[in-house]
Amino acid sequence: MTLDTQARQPIDRSTCSALDAADPLAHFRERFVLPDGVVYLDGNSLGALPRATASHVARVVTEEWGQGLIRSWNDAGWFEKPLVLGDRIAPLIGGAPGEVTLGDSTSASLFQAVVAAARLRPGRRAIVAERGNFPTDLYVLESVQELLGGDAPLERRLIADDGPTLAEVLDEDVAVVVLTHVDYRTGRMHDLAEVTRQVHEAGAIVVWDLCHSVGAVPVELNAAGADFAVGCTYKYLNGGPGSPSFIWVAARHQAEARPALTGWHGHARPFAFELGYAPAEGIGRFRVGTPQLLALAGLEASLELWAEVDLEALREKSLRLTELFISLVDARLGAWDVEVVTPRQSARRGSQVSLRIGAADGYAVMQALIDGGVIGDFRAPDLVRFGFAPLYVSHADVCDAVDALEDVLASGRWREPRFARRGLVT
Amino acid sequence: MTLDTQARQPIDRSTCSALDAADPLAHFRERFVLPDGVVYLDGNSLGALPRATASHVARVVTEEWGQGLIRSWNDAGWFEKPLVLGDRIAPLIGGAPGEVTLGDSTSASLFQAVVAAARLRPGRRAIVAERGNFPTDLYVLESVQELLGGDAPLERRLIADDGPTLAEVLDEDVAVVVLTHVDYRTGRMHDLAEVTRQVHEAGAIVVWDLCHSVGAVPVELNAAGADFAVGCTYKYLNGGPGSPSFIWVAARHQAEARPALTGWHGHARPFAFELGYAPAEGIGRFRVGTPQLLALAGLEASLELWAEVDLEALREKSLRLTELFISLVDARLGAWDVEVVTPRQSARRGSQVSLRIGAADGYAVMQALIDGGVIGDFRAPDLVRFGFAPLYVSHADVCDAVDALEDVLASGRWREPRFARRGLVT
Repeated sequence: MTLDTQARQPIDRSTCSALDAADPLAHFRERFVLPDGVVYLDGNSLGALPRATASHVARVVTEEWGQGLIRSWNDAGWFEKPLVLGDRIAPLIGGAPGEVTLGDSTSASLFQAVVAAARLRPGRRAIVAERGNFPTDLYVLESVQELLGGDAPLERRLIADDGPTLAEVLDEDVAVVVLTHVDYRTGRMHDLAEVTRQVHEAGAIVVWDLCHSVGAVPVELNAAGADFAVGCTYKYLNGGPGSPSFIWVAARHQAEARPALTGWHGHARPFAFELGYAPAEGIGRFRVGTPQLLALAGLEASLELWAEVDLEALREKSLRLTELFISLVDARLGAWDVEVVTPRQSARRGSQVSLRIGAADGYAVMQALIDGGVIGDFRAPDLVRFGFAPLYVSHADVCDAVDALEDVLASGRWREPRFARRGLVT
Repeated sequence: MTLDTQARQPIDRSTCSALDAADPLAHFRERFVLPDGVVYLDGNSLGALPRATASHVARVVTEEWGQGLIRSWNDAGWFEKPLVLGDRIAPLIGGAPGEVTLGDSTSASLFQAVVAAARLRPGRRAIVAERGNFPTDLYVLESVQELLGGDAPLERRLIADDGPTLAEVLDEDVAVVVLTHVDYRTGRMHDLAEVTRQVHEAGAIVVWDLCHSVGAVPVELNAAGADFAVGCTYKYLNGGPGSPSFIWVAARHQAEARPALTGWHGHARPFAFELGYAPAEGIGRFRVGTPQLLALAGLEASLELWAEVDLEALREKSLRLTELFISLVDARLGAWDVEVVTPRQSARRGSQVSLRIGAADGYAVMQALIDGGVIGDFRAPDLVRFGFAPLYVSHADVCDAVDALEDVLASGRWREPRFARRGLVT
């Protein structure tokens, strides 16, 4: 089943088309593969495939690996690839060259960052996190609390948007504050500079999770004087499924930062095969083991494209898309008790909009939408989530999505048994 | 420059050809891409590209990612992929289904394994390792010693082939013994069953590094009653540059094993997005974050091929190749004070042969060999290393390699300045 946009006349179709015609980023859409009959609003979970990626990955497989074999570690620059690509991510987050390296997964990079951060504040026994962190961050913190705690685990203090606040839990015993810049469920965005200032005032170190920020919203880490950050490249950056995480460490911390995963690619002289660990100078010490080159190849192709993007124009379009979506939801979906959970104040909003639907089961609604070609996702317990990747989502997509959502609710199609919850909720 | 095999008549060329004609594994060679003019004896560092890999990776990129998008987490089995491929690795190491998962890098997997192993022996304050471990293992152990030590780091006791012996350092204070089954430098192989027995007698846990074993020599983890193992898939298994590591945990340990990298993919209910960490049942708890699917795609293709391999025939061919190489070196290279560092006793030898050359600089010799199309590698301070991947290395390759080595030494070509050591030694 595909979108039924011909059969009905959505309220704002002409407005949407006019906005697309005037969109300075519209030309990027043709650089991506978008399946026929699909409105893809899940680029905040897995970004779409850039058209240039397949041939680049194929070249790495057949030429660099197949023909170059082991020689490609030097000749194709494999060894330095995580740092070279890190330097291309730096400008997307307000970082400088030499401050970013690619890692394994965000979980592993967060572990690296938090251990190193906590070690910069020895003696302090508390870590602050927030309920809205993506759960893996909290799971990793449990491990860090135990490993760094010695006789007893470090204390954890959880903040939340509905309290307790950061101000209420910060004191001279807090070593590290781990926060997600844009909340994965609600799309709520922190004021990165202001929160960083607040953390520093308490003498603590801040670790920012930028998974839902990079490629979606402006991030100015150095302007804010931030300390550490990690993020993911397979969402808005289009690196491919599970493409590697990145870690950013402010230049001023690098010399004294001590990572926990002390693999040989982070060694000062990896090919001297010395018996003792000696950290590399700079960000290189945050590398771990041999990087997964085929995954890096996917990311390399997408970062070529990202180098062309005007980040200010990106943010403007993102806000236009989310505002349009919210206004259409407000205008047309009131009958089903649909609540916009994402902040309406643009400065506090990432590039997604999450809804809570009072009169229907959100999971089933999303399944029915996906069945009809509008792909968003569901986050337990009750949020339907729509991501607006500004490089390939059009204003017309927004109209079509709201049409489809209204249709699913009005028709009651979401009640069909095939849309009911299964075991593995995604 | 390519191999000069036409111009001279090597001693044993007819013997080699006869051995190739009788080789039951010879047909596998055509399943791999091998560049023209190259004798590839570095499959112990980066395995050759299977012919089927490029199209499989391309399909994952264009269909699973490009068309399937986020739906492929369910529809293409992405979420379970590290466990599904783990089950295909299990028979290659004498493991059972449900005992292996793919990880990130070997360094990260070793960290996972050693922390979990040490936690099974609380109160014991020493870790045994060996000088011959690949250095990343030692570097990672330094971190584990500190993180698990509490007030003072855990003690490390190093053994070596020239002493101290395992028996000399084992006592009731040893929690974990971390050993490399096949030494990456010398190719020396431990008796896995006997060493495991010895470790258990002291009440300790053994963690085996199988990087240079899997796909090269017989490994019977369960028959030996081993505890933990990690290994790499980009060497003899041909998974591609930096393809993910694996971790094996004996079924009897899984319920009480507590990993250190507690990412969401190792959670019991990852998509419930719970705030607290709860480990998955079984080997799944050793997963960390989102796996790098494009790298896994490369590995998936090669494991299809490995499912066809008779491991007994593989070992037989491996020994034939290494014995042939050693006998040719003995017969022809004595004039240059060439020492075979690898054990001559077949039961103690992996699938590589390392040489120390008294009358020449090994680094320069290897560079001259590579320049001439025979690719092995050099390991500091003085070893030239030749790996014999039985699926695609022929007996004729062995002859050609010794011809080339003799020629490089006899001609003195290794003295050319372009072959001298540079900064990044590989």
